[in-house]
Amino acid sequence: MPEKETYSDLPKATVKRLPQYYRLFKKLVDDKIMRTNSREISEKIGVDSATVRRDFSLFGELGRRGYGYDSLSLRDFFANLLGNEVSTNIALIGVGNLGRALLNYPFQRRNKLHIAMAFDLPSNPLVGTKSESGIPIYNIGELAQRLCDSDIETAILSVDTVHSQDVANILVNTGIKGILNFTPVYLQVPDNIVVQSIDLTKELQTLIFFMNNASQL
Amino acid sequence: MPEKETYSDLPKATVKRLPQYYRLFKKLVDDKIMRTNSREISEKIGVDSATVRRDFSLFGELGRRGYGYDSLSLRDFFANLLGNEVSTNIALIGVGNLGRALLNYPFQRRNKLHIAMAFDLPSNPLVGTKSESGIPIYNIGELAQRLCDSDIETAILSVDTVHSQDVANILVNTGIKGILNFTPVYLQVPDNIVVQSIDLTKELQTLIFFMNNASQL
Repeated sequence: MPEKETYSDLPKATVKRLPQYYRLFKKLVDDKIMRTNSREISEKIGVDSATVRRDFSLFGELGRRGYGYDSLSLRDFFANLLGNEVSTNIALIGVGNLGRALLNYPFQRRNKLHIAMAFDLPSNPLVGTKSESGIPIYNIGELAQRLCDSDIETAILSVDTVHSQDVANILVNTGIKGILNFTPVYLQVPDNIVVQSIDLTKELQTLIFFMNNASQL
Repeated sequence: MPEKETYSDLPKATVKRLPQYYRLFKKLVDDKIMRTNSREISEKIGVDSATVRRDFSLFGELGRRGYGYDSLSLRDFFANLLGNEVSTNIALIGVGNLGRALLNYPFQRRNKLHIAMAFDLPSNPLVGTKSESGIPIYNIGELAQRLCDSDIETAILSVDTVHSQDVANILVNTGIKGILNFTPVYLQVPDNIVVQSIDLTKELQTLIFFMNNASQL
């Protein structure tokens, strides 16, 4: 099993599959299926087996010829790779309908991902209260100070579109390193800040395009 | 400008950018910026300009050498391509925290995407009521019959993980052609059904991986 190292040159498409691999091996271990192969992996997660083998080859020798992959070793390898042994505190900005759902989303059920605090405009009646699970919801005027006083480097952005760039600027200035962006705005941030965007309308439009043009896809 | 046709062999990555192109040209027209070029497009949506030119070349001659791209023509071209002139009715299955947020999400603000009905287990107190915007929330026991009686071919799935495959099976049997899947389950469906998955934990894990391995990404 390779030593822990950083992988800065992995293809982006491979990185996006890492959580799927991790979840699969976790489930195999839970189900006491202690070895598997690329064909079985392919069937279970819907990624073709050549892609699975190519992805795994980027990490050196994860499997053994004639044996396949050891579920326990691979689970621990992908957990380690994803930094899953380390807790991550996250700030949520924007507690509207979507923000409320994210506040209560079970990110932490199987992973060490915790929304530690949330923020919104003082006009939001939830400001000054806590979520069901006890996450405090603060006035967004306190955002910069509270982030500076915390170890939080990760933010989830679910504010109104018109505010998204302004809030992103504050986040960058207070040392946030990564933003999960639920607004449909392309955020202008420095190169060292990572932005992962989820645009729900775009996902639905893409789905419908595939439906309308499905013959070969 | 090319005639309307179907594009069944576009690269998946290109298809996923189509809604971004559409939104950009829509905004340019709204802002009265009537022509643009691949460099400006690149800066505004964060896709490199060679990729923009390669994507556009898949549709024939969208621009003119020395002139660039005409915002109005391109807006209409992408609207047409995405089927945006046609209304799409959608069923939402699962009205928990995330489902409620999706019920109130402004999919329809600028697009003809309408959630027409929603479903959940009878234990959900929202069953039998309507959303703020008047979308009826039915007992999931009525799912098959109500879908069969409707023209709905698109579903959003935000049920508990344990129910997702069972509900997907019902959807497939009632003629649904596409599923936007918010559960972390890889759905087993026939080849002619399109599934687009959004796994929020996976997105957050991917973001954190990029943050931890950011030097070259």
